[in-house]
Amino acid sequence: MQQQVDIDYIQELVDNEDFEELNKIYKELDLHPADWAYYLEELSPQDLAKYIELTGPEYGSFIFEFVSFGTKKEILELLSATTLARIVNLLNPDDKADLIEEVDEEMQEYILSLLFQSERQNILRLISYPENSAGSYMTTEYALLRMNDTVETALEQIRLQAPKKENVYYIYVVDSTMHLVGFISLRRLIMAPRRSYIKQIMDKNVIATGVDENIENVAQNMRHYDFLAMPVVDENERLVGLITFDDIYDVIHKEATEDMYLLANLDTDETISSPVHRSVKLRLPWLLLNLLTGLLVAYTVTFFEDSIDQFVALAVMVPVVALLGGNAGNQSLAVVVRALAVGEITLQNHWRVLGKEIFVGFLNGLCMGGVISLIGFLWYQNSWLAMILWISMAANLVIAGLVGSMIPLLLRKLKLDPALGSSIFVTTATDVGGFFIFLSLGTIFLQQLLGS
Amino acid sequence: MQQQVDIDYIQELVDNEDFEELNKIYKELDLHPADWAYYLEELSPQDLAKYIELTGPEYGSFIFEFVSFGTKKEILELLSATTLARIVNLLNPDDKADLIEEVDEEMQEYILSLLFQSERQNILRLISYPENSAGSYMTTEYALLRMNDTVETALEQIRLQAPKKENVYYIYVVDSTMHLVGFISLRRLIMAPRRSYIKQIMDKNVIATGVDENIENVAQNMRHYDFLAMPVVDENERLVGLITFDDIYDVIHKEATEDMYLLANLDTDETISSPVHRSVKLRLPWLLLNLLTGLLVAYTVTFFEDSIDQFVALAVMVPVVALLGGNAGNQSLAVVVRALAVGEITLQNHWRVLGKEIFVGFLNGLCMGGVISLIGFLWYQNSWLAMILWISMAANLVIAGLVGSMIPLLLRKLKLDPALGSSIFVTTATDVGGFFIFLSLGTIFLQQLLGS
Repeated sequence: MQQQVDIDYIQELVDNEDFEELNKIYKELDLHPADWAYYLEELSPQDLAKYIELTGPEYGSFIFEFVSFGTKKEILELLSATTLARIVNLLNPDDKADLIEEVDEEMQEYILSLLFQSERQNILRLISYPENSAGSYMTTEYALLRMNDTVETALEQIRLQAPKKENVYYIYVVDSTMHLVGFISLRRLIMAPRRSYIKQIMDKNVIATGVDENIENVAQNMRHYDFLAMPVVDENERLVGLITFDDIYDVIHKEATEDMYLLANLDTDETISSPVHRSVKLRLPWLLLNLLTGLLVAYTVTFFEDSIDQFVALAVMVPVVALLGGNAGNQSLAVVVRALAVGEITLQNHWRVLGKEIFVGFLNGLCMGGVISLIGFLWYQNSWLAMILWISMAANLVIAGLVGSMIPLLLRKLKLDPALGSSIFVTTATDVGGFFIFLSLGTIFLQQLLGS
Repeated sequence: MQQQVDIDYIQELVDNEDFEELNKIYKELDLHPADWAYYLEELSPQDLAKYIELTGPEYGSFIFEFVSFGTKKEILELLSATTLARIVNLLNPDDKADLIEEVDEEMQEYILSLLFQSERQNILRLISYPENSAGSYMTTEYALLRMNDTVETALEQIRLQAPKKENVYYIYVVDSTMHLVGFISLRRLIMAPRRSYIKQIMDKNVIATGVDENIENVAQNMRHYDFLAMPVVDENERLVGLITFDDIYDVIHKEATEDMYLLANLDTDETISSPVHRSVKLRLPWLLLNLLTGLLVAYTVTFFEDSIDQFVALAVMVPVVALLGGNAGNQSLAVVVRALAVGEITLQNHWRVLGKEIFVGFLNGLCMGGVISLIGFLWYQNSWLAMILWISMAANLVIAGLVGSMIPLLLRKLKLDPALGSSIFVTTATDVGGFFIFLSLGTIFLQQLLGS
């Protein structure tokens, strides 16, 4: 962000409905529309809607392009049908589709009735694609060429197409039935001899993605190839759309936020600016689930009340064994979840991953067991306690490695998100495991513990 | 990835040093270099080095462009100086610099001595930028125009520059001292009337980034503006480089992985394919730290040994209070860490964030406290136990909200990564807090607990 805008002054101008002065500021500061939208988002949705109503649809359209999803949704309900329709007309097809998906049915009908037949069908098709599919992210405004064009005519074509297309840097070549037959970058096109034919210079091995493909896989592929854009084809291999780099920025970002949130047992709808009641509502179900699993831990303890009664050091040391298991389990979990997200775990290597995590858990357990065993011995001068600490820690870290890698792999196999609730299960397993193993051993060797 | 390659057959050809056949396969399959590199990476570093030595530097250069960082480092040490030098000559300046940073001093000298004076200085400058700065990511191969060019000559210029430049889609206009005076996209350039001057059609308000700017901020800005590339200027506002979209794919991805790893107490150097001994070595320090903090929990328990001895239900219920605190704390932590990473928390709103998290913790604590209180009552038929459970849970979830948001804010203030080790501190605080509050209350009300 380049310049500072005085938001109080803007608020004042909005209050006074002095929109001429407002637009003068915008033009004088020569702000990027993304920045102007960023500042305007500080206004209340009511004021923002008023601003759009009174300054005209071209301002409305870029605000819609750049404000956050939540704000967009709020303004939508406040705008008049006429303004909304005029804004819709200025948007790209994919943004149009996103917007139409958000309004109620009556408004949908109204907006759709204002569009041309061909565009209406286009939009209806776009909104039919499932969430997170390539189809739901693609734009339908891409530059096209025919393979019998010369470079000369192709450049003229692109010049004519450019104003209306979202991306003219990656250009696709199609046959008469819209089948993808070639690809050429604008860079290569401008370097090519004017008289050569597109079919001579195009790249015939075009890498494309299916319209139903998960957008996260598309993002991975575009990152793999360093692609600025990726063509989308339907089930008959016909070109239907284009995914561009800016979508991929958002997808990589969103995917990472989601995994991080799910690992922390947060709902992905929450943001830092969610109001308190919403945060409470979204977090409570996870806490409740954790409370129920926590009761398992409590229930485990009840079996050993007598032992604890007789040798209270058991109650002192057991949290350390449980805590470390939870930490080690979450380490395995994070490595596996991330590797699954970026496609580094395949059907071929998932047994190897599982085996490795268990082995790492075992080795770490031996080391940490040694440390806690020594501390336990120095503290209580009890070699039996030292021994059962060592064994419990090693065993619990094996459980950590096993559960931390198995749960995300299992969730993936069930076609669920590998991070979904997994940390609760892992922590429960290592808590129950830690308490059970340590207190069981404590009970078995209770006489020795008391005697030494 | 488009086609399957039989890696066993490739291994066989490498064993037989049949590189002609190998390259024939590559060309016949018409693979994207990124895919070919992906398959070749399955070979051992020794075999890969052999392949590069015998097939020539052009293969070596794209392999260097596309294989993972770890593999690159391993092959580097296996290549002959001549091959290495020939590969270096084919790389982009930023890839050159990355490579030179990795080799030993003697090899550095040798490679640098093979370059032209101007290029040598360029490379030396590039490797001088600190890690994670815009300077360390930028390319120095960008397209340039002068403002007095006409569109006609500009297009001719770009045509000439294109073969050597990494990006010709965003073009920058500079004055005679390399000061950035304008920007024009190739799309706008090809649409413009042939006779108009660049200065008439260029965008004069160019958004640029400083060479020392943190690359994560650059990524955020490029995502904000939907930029395909971002110009980099030095302290005197002179254009020195360009960050492109493919760097940003990697930066957004890397940043997210780092935060996720740090939240799980993993070293960011670890990957799913790290060998066991390396994973063990990288995870042990975190586990050791957690063990030490776990001893704090154990130490807390020792103060209450007598109470536990007399009323063992305390030992049964205390893990639930601690566990839930840990979960709630990690929820706050994840929200705040992510919001800090994407710049949604500013100096103005961080008190508000802290206040909100504490309040959310309090409300969730009241709810969860109610549930655990009811369960405790039904289990032990003890209304005093129910009461102290309720209070402890509410208090511990307030601690969770406070610590979960305060620690990352504090780490950021200390200019450390907000996720660094924070989950250990949060879990320790909620464990010690949970044990201390619940067991203290249990001790204070011990007579009532025993009496009812």
